[in-house]
Amino acid sequence: MIDIASRVYNHTWKIDPIVRSVLDTDFYKLLMAQTIYRRHFHTRVTFGIINRTRSVRLADFVDESELREQLDHVRTLKLTRGESTWLRGNMFYGKRQMFSPDFIAWLESFRFPPYHLEKRDGQFELTFEGPWIETTMWEVPALAIINELRSRAVLRDMGRFELQVLYARAMTRVWEKVERLRALEGVNVADFGTRRRHGFLWQDWCVQAMIEGLGDSFLGTSNCLIALRREVEATGTNAHELPMVYAALADTDEELAQAPYRVLLDWQQDYEGNLRVMLPDTFGTTGFLAAAPDWADKWTGIRIDSKEPIAGGEEAIAWWRARGQDPTEKLAIFSDALDVDDIVRTYRHFHGRMKLGFGWGTLLTNDFRGFVAGGALDPISIVCKVVSADGRPTVKLSDNPTKAMGPAEEIARYKRVFHVSAQTEREVLV
Amino acid sequence: MIDIASRVYNHTWKIDPIVRSVLDTDFYKLLMAQTIYRRHFHTRVTFGIINRTRSVRLADFVDESELREQLDHVRTLKLTRGESTWLRGNMFYGKRQMFSPDFIAWLESFRFPPYHLEKRDGQFELTFEGPWIETTMWEVPALAIINELRSRAVLRDMGRFELQVLYARAMTRVWEKVERLRALEGVNVADFGTRRRHGFLWQDWCVQAMIEGLGDSFLGTSNCLIALRREVEATGTNAHELPMVYAALADTDEELAQAPYRVLLDWQQDYEGNLRVMLPDTFGTTGFLAAAPDWADKWTGIRIDSKEPIAGGEEAIAWWRARGQDPTEKLAIFSDALDVDDIVRTYRHFHGRMKLGFGWGTLLTNDFRGFVAGGALDPISIVCKVVSADGRPTVKLSDNPTKAMGPAEEIARYKRVFHVSAQTEREVLV
Repeated sequence: MIDIASRVYNHTWKIDPIVRSVLDTDFYKLLMAQTIYRRHFHTRVTFGIINRTRSVRLADFVDESELREQLDHVRTLKLTRGESTWLRGNMFYGKRQMFSPDFIAWLESFRFPPYHLEKRDGQFELTFEGPWIETTMWEVPALAIINELRSRAVLRDMGRFELQVLYARAMTRVWEKVERLRALEGVNVADFGTRRRHGFLWQDWCVQAMIEGLGDSFLGTSNCLIALRREVEATGTNAHELPMVYAALADTDEELAQAPYRVLLDWQQDYEGNLRVMLPDTFGTTGFLAAAPDWADKWTGIRIDSKEPIAGGEEAIAWWRARGQDPTEKLAIFSDALDVDDIVRTYRHFHGRMKLGFGWGTLLTNDFRGFVAGGALDPISIVCKVVSADGRPTVKLSDNPTKAMGPAEEIARYKRVFHVSAQTEREVLV
Repeated sequence: MIDIASRVYNHTWKIDPIVRSVLDTDFYKLLMAQTIYRRHFHTRVTFGIINRTRSVRLADFVDESELREQLDHVRTLKLTRGESTWLRGNMFYGKRQMFSPDFIAWLESFRFPPYHLEKRDGQFELTFEGPWIETTMWEVPALAIINELRSRAVLRDMGRFELQVLYARAMTRVWEKVERLRALEGVNVADFGTRRRHGFLWQDWCVQAMIEGLGDSFLGTSNCLIALRREVEATGTNAHELPMVYAALADTDEELAQAPYRVLLDWQQDYEGNLRVMLPDTFGTTGFLAAAPDWADKWTGIRIDSKEPIAGGEEAIAWWRARGQDPTEKLAIFSDALDVDDIVRTYRHFHGRMKLGFGWGTLLTNDFRGFVAGGALDPISIVCKVVSADGRPTVKLSDNPTKAMGPAEEIARYKRVFHVSAQTEREVLV
């Protein structure tokens, strides 16, 4: 029997919204937002979308008006009562009341700020300018929208059963990956795939498949809305935007050199335990670790995000050992374009030598590689990065020069200040 | 929104019925039933289920009471008004009013007769004894029920996503087969997979996938209910039970030798065109063709069901040529345990030399081979055959001695009467 009311109600939707909730974002955005709320409420920044896969000319086949409709829909969202209750009442990383009442009150009143969109050379120039605390919220939904609009554009011409088989293939692929991970005793894997997911429903499916397939080895999802609905842990820590903005705001080279550690100082006032996982690669991991203050090696762990995983993990172990720390008590979270081969290889290499966590992203939630002609559904390397703070350009170096961004002269200055020598280029897949 | 009424209504089902319609059967059953109705209304026969895959001890894991509930449910079915209208109003093989009003009136009043069920040596002994016109109707639903109960028994312990991935794999497999068939220009394929299907919904999915994937190359389905619902052709002709019963009723060796041709004589009074496709292998194809009367070579085609397809097709071509017929005007329907490799190979061999049709059965609607441990979902070779008629045992030889059935002395007599010499054994997969 058809539920006529539902069907008629569905007629009233003008679009099929991709992002339908303020919480359809990564958990670390909320953690960072609280830190920004407390310390940088008046800082103004600009975020911009960068499609590093230039060969995929998104603006040629994703309709600009559809993109505007989706972005406009996000601007109508507000935190719902149930979502607010979840944030207030939930336990995150074993801690209750992680978010202060004043921050949650701000989040309840939050509305997404305006965006600026134009087309140039087959790409969308999509930027968000304004208070850091507001513009930072755009990163994940903007990326998710662009990625899903691209999927929709490709899927539009497919038949019903062709589509079903497409998803059958994708499900089989995810499940076979989950079966391989399940064979790794005690492995810990989290979904980090919101931003570059194929689509919301697909990410939700992947998470549910991991809940069933991985059991205790599934740590949770970075997506707050899915964590809420599926009653699993919301996971994540922090991202490059913090040191990038802190660094951009530094007035001298000395302040610049200290900026990454200022981030850690602020962060450890706000968060403890498993949230004290540092992201050392913003301006080069090696220099960061060498100059790190004593208290930094007491942190719970390190996220390895742009260095080859084995090299990055060995560097962390050597650093902890040199600082008199026991690496087996430390946590390494790997999160750079991981697929199962990388996870298996890294797990086998480090298992028993330190605690391991894997943040599995795009190649979990958007691996449709080879399923349609011309790789039209292969994931692209698209990011939304902070490009300036209070009018000053930001810089990111990372451990992979292919990922570096910022004005050339600023990159040169940062390399000098952070003692970055020759780096190894690695292909950026996603 | 949940449709509460539907959900509550669903509570009232005591079981999840496998066969829910008199029309959930093969079309050829209705064609044969009409011939039986007209000419053999008082003949009594016994049908019996035979699981040729003895290693699968069905009664060890399929619950007898569940089987009884399913069979009992079938006994409550009656032709619905819409189904009757479809039979009266539909065009079958280009012909309207294929079924006479008196036969349809009989079918409207038809109820499935009693069954006899016991367990022996890990197998079900399931037999149907009574008027041929009634017991013949049990063949397809009884087989479909046993096959689906077996599937359900295996699936019962699987998780939700494990199940979804199982079907994802099966969908992918069917679709890849369809893609291979689509590449064969002008190929004609029909679904013949009702009896040994994995389940009703799965057969329905396979048919829909073929509708979309094969387009004009999809001839239709043998399943009347699915043909009705999906608005495609109902396909099929006749089966071994006709010559088997005609032969068993013969009083002398001379009458026995003529029995297969009596079947053809009766059939061509009832049906024309594409329904005049003879099934020559019941007592050996070679002898059947050699002794066939002149008018037989005027028939539209031949179904090749137990001989190796290339050999069977070449034999048909040679026979037509020897009789002065043009093979390119003739139709060969292949239907023995076909999978795509067989279809491709046979198509390539005969394309352009005669008209080709492929009745794709078990390996379309029940190919879950290798998807669960121990091959627990691999199809089995299970049949429901007429074993006696008016108290006399029936015999089937076929072109594959592995498929022969009947008392040994009767098999010997039939071989003598039908001049059957050495035959080639072929493994019976399904």
